[in-house]
Amino acid sequence: MATYTNRLTVRLQDTDAAGILFFANQLVFAHETYEKFLEEINCGLAHVFEQRSYHIPLVHVEADYAKPVTVGDEIDVEMTVTNIGKTSFTLDYLLVGTDGAEIGRCRTVHVTVAESDMKKITLPTELREGLERYYESP
Amino acid sequence: MATYTNRLTVRLQDTDAAGILFFANQLVFAHETYEKFLEEINCGLAHVFEQRSYHIPLVHVEADYAKPVTVGDEIDVEMTVTNIGKTSFTLDYLLVGTDGAEIGRCRTVHVTVAESDMKKITLPTELREGLERYYESP
Amino acid sequence: MATYTNRLTVRLQDTDAAGILFFANQLVFAHETYEKFLEEINCGLAHVFEQRSYHIPLVHVEADYAKPVTVGDEIDVEMTVTNIGKTSFTLDYLLVGTDGAEIGRCRTVHVTVAESDMKKITLPTELREGLERYYESP
Amino acid sequence: MATYTNRLTVRLQDTDAAGILFFANQLVFAHETYEKFLEEINCGLAHVFEQRSYHIPLVHVEADYAKPVTVGDEIDVEMTVTNIGKTSFTLDYLLVGTDGAEIGRCRTVHVTVAESDMKKITLPTELREGLERYYESP
Repeated sequence: MATYTNRLTVRLQDTDAAGILFFANQLVFAHETYEKFLEEINCGLAHVFEQRSYHIPLVHVEADYAKPVTVGDEIDVEMTVTNIGKTSFTLDYLLVGTDGAEIGRCRTVHVTVAESDMKKITLPTELREGLERYYESP
Repeated sequence: MATYTNRLTVRLQDTDAAGILFFANQLVFAHETYEKFLEEINCGLAHVFEQRSYHIPLVHVEADYAKPVTVGDEIDVEMTVTNIGKTSFTLDYLLVGTDGAEIGRCRTVHVTVAESDMKKITLPTELREGLERYYESP
Repeated sequence: MATYTNRLTVRLQDTDAAGILFFANQLVFAHETYEKFLEEINCGLAHVFEQRSYHIPLVHVEADYAKPVTVGDEIDVEMTVTNIGKTSFTLDYLLVGTDGAEIGRCRTVHVTVAESDMKKITLPTELREGLERYYESP
Repeated sequence: MATYTNRLTVRLQDTDAAGILFFANQLVFAHETYEKFLEEINCGLAHVFEQRSYHIPLVHVEADYAKPVTVGDEIDVEMTVTNIGKTSFTLDYLLVGTDGAEIGRCRTVHVTVAESDMKKITLPTELREGLERYYESP
């Protein structure tokens, strides 16, 4: 069991006129964490795009908001792999402040498809093995 | 029963290097539709921000992706109000192409809070009456 | 001489925690206007991407800010073509409020390159003819 | 003389369907660098927003594009202060790849205004002293 953690800082570009993080950017923070995680397991998007064999489209996302954050606030995005299927996987993200308070949660569900016809394919071994290192039974 | 529809076009800024709409922007499209709907019922965010009495933060969002879209594609975002609670409401969005094919779905859940202490308050009458005009039993 | 005008409304997603339009989004508004203009002259980006013959990368942009705008404000982006070179063209944009007050200005400079080797090419005829219809001597 | 350097990685969210960094995001990268620089000199935006005494609006920005970058590419944004006026300052940014090749350049011009009436004010001492530490005669 392992959690992949990504620390980031809320920037002006991430906020809106309500003075807080624009809601969709919580999911962008989750996705940035996912991209860094993919690089950590040697399946970075640059690698995936270059080899032109498969894609990993999102099929579902969700987010819950617990506490507003704003410019300059630091956030730890803690990601775990909560499901590994035949052709899909699920990532859960907990966003916490430096005081440990929950800011929100996200979930993203991904499938793997062949670049050639965009039909679902079994998770490539390189990806599955990386995911298993961060799998946590929910 | 009524549906509020917002037609928009996917722009370069909305896409990513996979050649399609960046996933979080489907939710931004939903939110733009929500903002136009609020103006339609005379509760636009400009009005809400100016009167400084209440806010309408999001507490939950989700999105499902059915079909990729790209630069220049036209989308109809069809919004209905699917729940009106004491202090919250739920909006469902269906995104369809000009050929009628489903592109995806979104859901956003909002609560109303007092500007003074950010505690939950009963939906203001102006907002509740507008929402009821677009309510559709799910 | 002709001006291509695009009316748009500032949305929450376009603003930041200073309560106003996030600076880079003034240029995004200019680019959205450019994309609609390209469609108007039958050279839309969807068309350009599909025919895979040439690209129109930006080489320079600038923006000046005169008056802050915020959520719900309507803006007219008035675009003119101010230079048509052998392999490049320049677009100037004036952003004005519905009261006629200047909000800001943008300029974008584009070149045409071959898709095959990304080397500069003479402006394709379809594009040059469209640009000439909106050319205005500065 | 000193340069403030910010290393960042291009993420999917930063790119567009042309497969490269969306042009406006080069300026967002510059602004992120500026925000980190402000924190370095103890004038972070969080601090500026909290003390409610002055604001630092942008009045002009520009960007030049030399070389396209895409998902996973690392960039060093090298910032210097190239002008310190009575009520304004100018920042220049050079973006270079890890191979040392120039990716592009940005410039941002800022003024200081009083929060009370948004009229121009002399650069606050805390800000001027920090800027002087990174000033480089152009």
